[in-house]
Amino acid sequence: MATQYPKKKCGVLGATGSVGQRFILLLADHPFLELQAVGASERSAGKRYKDAVRWKQMTPMSERLSQLVLRDCKAEQFQDCDIVFSGLNSDVAGDVGMETNPIAFDHCSRKQWLIQVHFLEMEFIKAEIPVFSNAKNYRKHPLVPLVVPTVNPSHLDLIPHQRKEFGLKKGFLVCNSNCAVIGIVIPFAALQAKFGPVEEVEVFTEQAISGAGYPGVPSMDIVDNVIPYISGEEDKLENEAQKILGSLNAGASAFDEQKGLTIGATCTRVGVTDGHMAFVSLRFKNRSAVPSAEEVAQAMREYQSEAQKLGAPSAPKEAIFVFDEPDRPQPRLDRNINNGYTVSVGRVREGQKGGYFDIRFAALSHNTVLGAAGSSILNAEVAVIKGYV
Amino acid sequence: MATQYPKKKCGVLGATGSVGQRFILLLADHPFLELQAVGASERSAGKRYKDAVRWKQMTPMSERLSQLVLRDCKAEQFQDCDIVFSGLNSDVAGDVGMETNPIAFDHCSRKQWLIQVHFLEMEFIKAEIPVFSNAKNYRKHPLVPLVVPTVNPSHLDLIPHQRKEFGLKKGFLVCNSNCAVIGIVIPFAALQAKFGPVEEVEVFTEQAISGAGYPGVPSMDIVDNVIPYISGEEDKLENEAQKILGSLNAGASAFDEQKGLTIGATCTRVGVTDGHMAFVSLRFKNRSAVPSAEEVAQAMREYQSEAQKLGAPSAPKEAIFVFDEPDRPQPRLDRNINNGYTVSVGRVREGQKGGYFDIRFAALSHNTVLGAAGSSILNAEVAVIKGYV
Amino acid sequence: MATQYPKKKCGVLGATGSVGQRFILLLADHPFLELQAVGASERSAGKRYKDAVRWKQMTPMSERLSQLVLRDCKAEQFQDCDIVFSGLNSDVAGDVGMETNPIAFDHCSRKQWLIQVHFLEMEFIKAEIPVFSNAKNYRKHPLVPLVVPTVNPSHLDLIPHQRKEFGLKKGFLVCNSNCAVIGIVIPFAALQAKFGPVEEVEVFTEQAISGAGYPGVPSMDIVDNVIPYISGEEDKLENEAQKILGSLNAGASAFDEQKGLTIGATCTRVGVTDGHMAFVSLRFKNRSAVPSAEEVAQAMREYQSEAQKLGAPSAPKEAIFVFDEPDRPQPRLDRNINNGYTVSVGRVREGQKGGYFDIRFAALSHNTVLGAAGSSILNAEVAVIKGYV
Amino acid sequence: MATQYPKKKCGVLGATGSVGQRFILLLADHPFLELQAVGASERSAGKRYKDAVRWKQMTPMSERLSQLVLRDCKAEQFQDCDIVFSGLNSDVAGDVGMETNPIAFDHCSRKQWLIQVHFLEMEFIKAEIPVFSNAKNYRKHPLVPLVVPTVNPSHLDLIPHQRKEFGLKKGFLVCNSNCAVIGIVIPFAALQAKFGPVEEVEVFTEQAISGAGYPGVPSMDIVDNVIPYISGEEDKLENEAQKILGSLNAGASAFDEQKGLTIGATCTRVGVTDGHMAFVSLRFKNRSAVPSAEEVAQAMREYQSEAQKLGAPSAPKEAIFVFDEPDRPQPRLDRNINNGYTVSVGRVREGQKGGYFDIRFAALSHNTVLGAAGSSILNAEVAVIKGYV
Repeated sequence: MATQYPKKKCGVLGATGSVGQRFILLLADHPFLELQAVGASERSAGKRYKDAVRWKQMTPMSERLSQLVLRDCKAEQFQDCDIVFSGLNSDVAGDVGMETNPIAFDHCSRKQWLIQVHFLEMEFIKAEIPVFSNAKNYRKHPLVPLVVPTVNPSHLDLIPHQRKEFGLKKGFLVCNSNCAVIGIVIPFAALQAKFGPVEEVEVFTEQAISGAGYPGVPSMDIVDNVIPYISGEEDKLENEAQKILGSLNAGASAFDEQKGLTIGATCTRVGVTDGHMAFVSLRFKNRSAVPSAEEVAQAMREYQSEAQKLGAPSAPKEAIFVFDEPDRPQPRLDRNINNGYTVSVGRVREGQKGGYFDIRFAALSHNTVLGAAGSSILNAEVAVIKGYV
Repeated sequence: MATQYPKKKCGVLGATGSVGQRFILLLADHPFLELQAVGASERSAGKRYKDAVRWKQMTPMSERLSQLVLRDCKAEQFQDCDIVFSGLNSDVAGDVGMETNPIAFDHCSRKQWLIQVHFLEMEFIKAEIPVFSNAKNYRKHPLVPLVVPTVNPSHLDLIPHQRKEFGLKKGFLVCNSNCAVIGIVIPFAALQAKFGPVEEVEVFTEQAISGAGYPGVPSMDIVDNVIPYISGEEDKLENEAQKILGSLNAGASAFDEQKGLTIGATCTRVGVTDGHMAFVSLRFKNRSAVPSAEEVAQAMREYQSEAQKLGAPSAPKEAIFVFDEPDRPQPRLDRNINNGYTVSVGRVREGQKGGYFDIRFAALSHNTVLGAAGSSILNAEVAVIKGYV
Repeated sequence: MATQYPKKKCGVLGATGSVGQRFILLLADHPFLELQAVGASERSAGKRYKDAVRWKQMTPMSERLSQLVLRDCKAEQFQDCDIVFSGLNSDVAGDVGMETNPIAFDHCSRKQWLIQVHFLEMEFIKAEIPVFSNAKNYRKHPLVPLVVPTVNPSHLDLIPHQRKEFGLKKGFLVCNSNCAVIGIVIPFAALQAKFGPVEEVEVFTEQAISGAGYPGVPSMDIVDNVIPYISGEEDKLENEAQKILGSLNAGASAFDEQKGLTIGATCTRVGVTDGHMAFVSLRFKNRSAVPSAEEVAQAMREYQSEAQKLGAPSAPKEAIFVFDEPDRPQPRLDRNINNGYTVSVGRVREGQKGGYFDIRFAALSHNTVLGAAGSSILNAEVAVIKGYV
Repeated sequence: MATQYPKKKCGVLGATGSVGQRFILLLADHPFLELQAVGASERSAGKRYKDAVRWKQMTPMSERLSQLVLRDCKAEQFQDCDIVFSGLNSDVAGDVGMETNPIAFDHCSRKQWLIQVHFLEMEFIKAEIPVFSNAKNYRKHPLVPLVVPTVNPSHLDLIPHQRKEFGLKKGFLVCNSNCAVIGIVIPFAALQAKFGPVEEVEVFTEQAISGAGYPGVPSMDIVDNVIPYISGEEDKLENEAQKILGSLNAGASAFDEQKGLTIGATCTRVGVTDGHMAFVSLRFKNRSAVPSAEEVAQAMREYQSEAQKLGAPSAPKEAIFVFDEPDRPQPRLDRNINNGYTVSVGRVREGQKGGYFDIRFAALSHNTVLGAAGSSILNAEVAVIKGYV
């Protein structure tokens, strides 16, 4: 049972933002992760939470939360926390006092790393506070696990090496993935385990407005409309999966990205509050034994991730829920299956005769649960279970 | 000038439905096509138009229209019409008094044809009244031109052969295309004229609710939601383009469909009133000289269809309007460019390195104008200009 | 504790409709009401539930439910049920085999009643099965309690008299109120208890599309639109409150409607999935001591209904939740407070100087929970607790 | 004919904002008002229009417009203009370099006025350029006509007095009304002309998102939602009508506000792009001859404003269009009647027996045409026709 794990005191950075609010909701009823501290920008620090936040959740905030005093997002103010969840948006997360381009930070040496250490999230791990981050800044860093909890929690096993490289004892940094990538890598994990590598993917998304935060998308842009473009999103879809689906090397000191996986992406915004749809066409590498639609659906239904096997309390009963109905999944109806921790898949079908792709399907993931705060929570659960916290 | 053409008296079948109402609107200010008669189901025949219709257009109906008496959709009641536009939905259009499956009707002999002649639309052409139809029933028939007016109005030149085969003097049948196909074949026509055949296409659509007629899509299915499936639609997208993009043979007696064009389609419904988005990834057959994104955009900008060259009054200034802005076209803003007769294209970009597809773009077409009634109107204009009516 | 009450076997009539589905969801986790049987139209009877239903709920149906075989809505098929919940729409509920206008049924004698007994719901109570109905047919009948559970559960005490009049031992009929009335009578109950009778009310509603069932409102009517009219709704708003807010006479044999309460209503439909907003302007009868906005808000906050005092398991912690924020309640954010059993109120303010009305406020109620199935469930809980079932 | 009037060169202040864009669209095809200059904030001045604007209109911007260079909003830069339209939002319009509260500006002396003269709009009139303003700052000023063109264009006759008071020869300032007020004062003008003064009004609005400008309302606040509050709006509704419906005194030197007209307002925001709905309940002062619903509808149908009688080119055929259908007007279908210059009215009905109000109706007005830029344009037309420009 989950309750055997010791309680951990948790801080939430960016606690007044959309992702931060979701972190707080998910911690509210958690068996062993407890909300201890909330952090926000300097401007809000010192205020009571209820006076600084525009609370936009469907559950009223608790009396205790409303009275919590916001702390400045500095590590010394979170020394009483065992874990920190970062809902900072990526600009803030990597922009404090740094001229260096965070993109250039990828593949940096330990020395360079130290230079970066005054980045906000870095400051926390330097202070030996483990950070689970929803920001994009370090997702591609070779020493930072990029973890989708129902795909590659094994990547957390690089934590000891990360600590060693950075000279840390308790601190570490783990990132979760872009919200739209979730919908494709979880099904891919199931398929590749059974049918070998996917070679080429064409993916099209219909993404929810909550993915842009608050105030985010102006209503005049989305009522009776769709927006055929999301800045920077296609690049993430085309480039994050390879790391997530890759493997940890023998020494648990590096990630071997999946080679030869080409992804072409088109991302659009639609007038849906929560729930990203991804429509996938894929081609397997192994041309001699292409699976049927039925075999693909079956493989997804049977898939069990390590997070589930470890008994993490937020791990969903099914990592993937497969619909037979031709018109499902739908965001409004299906985003909350297993509290938003499950990817729903439907429309699994074979490619047309003579066509390039083998299989097409539709996948739905809850972008602010599995695609953001929820992944970090579940990653933290696994890290606690594995003893890294 | 268009006004040099003689006035033609027009009837509208299915005049109380969504497509029928749009026909009526488009005829309201037409330089030479004049609304003469409106037809509806037996139940409504005999009523004044305003008493039978649920008028859902953004222009109030005229006093004259409101007083028109609906006729039964029988050919003898439309003898005073030079042209009939059919906004009958496909079930009615091919279902009156026939046990034969209309699908099986494709490629039938002349003898079989005569058997079918009591089909509703057939009854009209048999009575020597030319019919421009929005229904799907005869789109694939080898003797029926399937015409997108800014792509293949030349296919109308099969009319003499059709008449000969059916023993008709004045009557003929012309179909327009499925509303979602429009968005891809017009750009393809421009590209193929310049860069040779397209070989493979992956297309994804976000289709407007008006495409399902009225009452059509229940609001509970589309508010805060998308529907990942439209019954029968993907099949049309995958199979209509080849005929439209094909050529008329030398004797103007048959259509040579475009061979080797493979289309894979995924169709979804979104909460937009009017305007279908199509997101296209395509691969050219000629691998030695794949055009750049800029060349593709330029080819689309320069494209002029025969309908434009002939000076048809509803022909748009631009068959294709190409946006440079990354977030356009958008349905609400751009569907009415040139009164809905133009396809808008944006996001023209090259495929990623090592990927299968050469070019990606987004296309928007007004589904109830260019994708339905408007195409029939423009087809009729061309037929009048060419002397077939 | 609720669990001390004996289990009751429940049937749901109209189980495949919107209200029926909601009944089933609410019974799924109920401490003592258990789903035993589902009934539908003759057409669906005999099918498995999952084969007959278009399930449109945000929780997937359970395996057990999906396999339940639908019964015909006849009393003899529900003899194993202690309670039946009727989600029949009003036309079916009072139309089976009867020429008599159900409206004319009001105020009928016992003899007339017996004539009506073959009405569908009547058939059930005649078979001694208690019915809790969401249909409108008998709401105004003088022998049928019209109960809003957080307002007048005391009206259930007329059940013995109803039984006596109809010659029944166990059967009885209880109705819940129209979904839009809920939002006004609960606040009125709180205010009248403290400040005396309300004399005149102007109420304006913005009602959710789920209130029209499925398929209900066509999407073309509500996207980028509002509909300024809901057939029959204003009449219900103007005439149901008086019975609900009235009292049971001393002999528990008749309802004394509240006299002198005049309500003027305007009802509109907006593109919201769930949650009816009601905007109320009211004038108290007692002109000498008109309460301030603060006193009004306080009275609503303190209000406790009998259902709460009796400890009914679905009774909400607060019957009324009052917001201080000027822009609340909002349907998307607040409709689920206390699982939809609470009315949210905001914008409590005094009328302008010299104006007719004393107080204005906005109220939100969940139309498919508190405004439909949920009220019936909670009424049934109270009836069980009071020993009538 | 309108074309007999001399051409006037027009400038638009705030030309990149929502209202500014709408001004530009309306001027595009105008018979005698010509776009000469566009002004924006200092930050944009000097840029080409297309490089500074986020064009959000449904008509692509013209080539000429796209190349216009934005001017700084200073009077000396608009000396070549005969008229300036101000789409500045109210904060900018009255906030430049002034500590004085613009509210306090009401009823100021000429001396105080001169102090205010460096207000932005004031600067223009001081430079002898007539200004038609959409901002709220001077609406209540006793020397500034507040004109709804189909109600009180006669108030423009105060212009000579305004000039005299301010020591101006050509310059003057005219304001148009708040967008939500429009929907009530036009019907009231029709009714009061026939049935005498309205005494008390309860009005409820459902306002479009475009009323909040761009970016304006966040999409997360309006998808599947309504917002029951618009800051400051109810106050305008309750207080602007009295001036508009008042009369000009005998010397054309002051406005006599309508006394004894009490308005109570509730304003809400709904997910509609354009078109404000107002639901009105009203009571006439004269209790002896309250008109029937039919008489009210007839009075509205017959109403002709001075703007129409003068033949102003943008004046609508009908100032008020009255629907018989119970479910009209609807924003999406009816906002564009007469290009948005007509108020649509429906649901005209008598109050319930014994109730306080005599008549209820629903009114729809296009908030960015009649409720903003269009009113200023039409006011300017009348001013030109009357010879004030």
